[in-house]
Amino acid sequence: MVYDIAIIGSGMAGMTACLYALRNNKSVLLLEKESVGGQIAESPRVENYPTQKSISGSELADKLFEQIDELGVNLEVEKVVGLEKKDDIFDIKGEYASYEARSVIIATGCKHRPLGLQGEDKLVGKGVYYCALCDGPFFTGQEVSLIGDANSALQYALLLSGMCKKVHMFTLFDHFFGEKTLQDAVKKASNIEITHSVKAVKLSGNDALESITFEREDGTTFEHKTKAVFVAIGQVPDNKAFEKLAELDKAGYIVAGEDCTTKTAGLFVAGDCRTKAVRQVATAIADGAVAAMGAVSYLGQEGGKK
Amino acid sequence: MVYDIAIIGSGMAGMTACLYALRNNKSVLLLEKESVGGQIAESPRVENYPTQKSISGSELADKLFEQIDELGVNLEVEKVVGLEKKDDIFDIKGEYASYEARSVIIATGCKHRPLGLQGEDKLVGKGVYYCALCDGPFFTGQEVSLIGDANSALQYALLLSGMCKKVHMFTLFDHFFGEKTLQDAVKKASNIEITHSVKAVKLSGNDALESITFEREDGTTFEHKTKAVFVAIGQVPDNKAFEKLAELDKAGYIVAGEDCTTKTAGLFVAGDCRTKAVRQVATAIADGAVAAMGAVSYLGQEGGKK
Repeated sequence: MVYDIAIIGSGMAGMTACLYALRNNKSVLLLEKESVGGQIAESPRVENYPTQKSISGSELADKLFEQIDELGVNLEVEKVVGLEKKDDIFDIKGEYASYEARSVIIATGCKHRPLGLQGEDKLVGKGVYYCALCDGPFFTGQEVSLIGDANSALQYALLLSGMCKKVHMFTLFDHFFGEKTLQDAVKKASNIEITHSVKAVKLSGNDALESITFEREDGTTFEHKTKAVFVAIGQVPDNKAFEKLAELDKAGYIVAGEDCTTKTAGLFVAGDCRTKAVRQVATAIADGAVAAMGAVSYLGQEGGKK
Repeated sequence: MVYDIAIIGSGMAGMTACLYALRNNKSVLLLEKESVGGQIAESPRVENYPTQKSISGSELADKLFEQIDELGVNLEVEKVVGLEKKDDIFDIKGEYASYEARSVIIATGCKHRPLGLQGEDKLVGKGVYYCALCDGPFFTGQEVSLIGDANSALQYALLLSGMCKKVHMFTLFDHFFGEKTLQDAVKKASNIEITHSVKAVKLSGNDALESITFEREDGTTFEHKTKAVFVAIGQVPDNKAFEKLAELDKAGYIVAGEDCTTKTAGLFVAGDCRTKAVRQVATAIADGAVAAMGAVSYLGQEGGKK
């Protein structure tokens, strides 16, 4: 079948787009490559989402999924690898199958940025981790390391400090970024040891991480022995599959303003994967609503053509 | 005292700005001229806010207020009538008192648009109403009239149809706007009688509404006897007090993009009161987050000056 709207990515932006599209009686296909909820589902505690005082990210995502599930969403687990448009129909190529839709909303979010060090790939899951919520519990009662300096890193530090014996935290600059309340909490925690102004330059270990080498500002280095490092140094988008139909900026984000339109009619973009200044759940859901309403309006105009 | 951030208006945008500002350890003054919650508090049922399946607008607003109340918001009931900036300090003139802040977020939302007919002012509350949730219950079991054609009007129609004997609904054009699900529900309701393509041209009645005169497309008119009309024909902003420091468009909205900045450094705008295409709770809270983070960042730069 040809869906009215295909939504690629089931984070908060994609699911909100789904909510608006379904409430406007559109047939909706929601494509998710891994698990529903996107990045927020990895946050242990969310306290800045309006109307939910304190909630885990996965609970937050679950609540929204329930909402769209009740409206009858079609969810497919599928990684999208290509997108084309022919005669007003989008052809969405997945790893397993192909799908057709009259409009498409890209809501692919971001993924964790790696350190970019040699051997990092091989050590993922063997000492190198990007999600404290998922992998922190494996190190309960042990010492762990953490690299990063902004909100995610601060949240990871607090989460890990609650379950680990000690958290060795390393930052690139001489101070933290991110929310003051989080910074204060991290500084107050007795089992978080902070080392500022250092850069990770080498990971050692073959089958498992053994140590990290850091470089100080003066060029001198030191080796820090550790079995586990959590890396929270930002995100990168993953929009290669869409570069034919949407303009990407240097960093790989889809170029779009708050109207969430792209250079291709009928193709919209929502959430963290587009160019924007503030990437928060609050701004992701705004995009979801705007992109869906854009698609609904586009289909209304297209409607006459059929 | 000089507050870090003063927020004018306690709708969803203003309260979200408050949430973000307080979580960043800023001193915050929240100014509200009527009651907390803004326009959404008048919506009987909200089903398109992500993570809240079905909730009244006032409950939704209450949940967010609880969240900021716990963080220690300073709320003042005050209508702001003027705003000036002198030596990096904003001087906020209220009807009762004046306040000082180093940055200001305008989140005044919109108010109901009147029909603009002679005598309308005198009949407000005496047959002419703008909020079905507030005033609908006074007409339980009776016949009422409704003017409007988009989401708010459709919601009003459904709400009134549940409590009134009959709803006479009048629209300017030959079809409805707004969500398809709402349109379908209104069309299905057995006690909603819809008259398309008519324009209200006269309200009759001195101490109380007696009838409305409508004009058809062909110029002929007819008189519709009614004791109560609910008017849901859109919103108008109320930003006159800020025109010195912020640019207003022809309709009175504050000109701003998604970064929520204005022509005055340190002055931000969030929610329905700014120029934007989609006015939804989802987009209002995005603005709240963005404006607050803009103010926090502005104060960080200003910090060095003190």
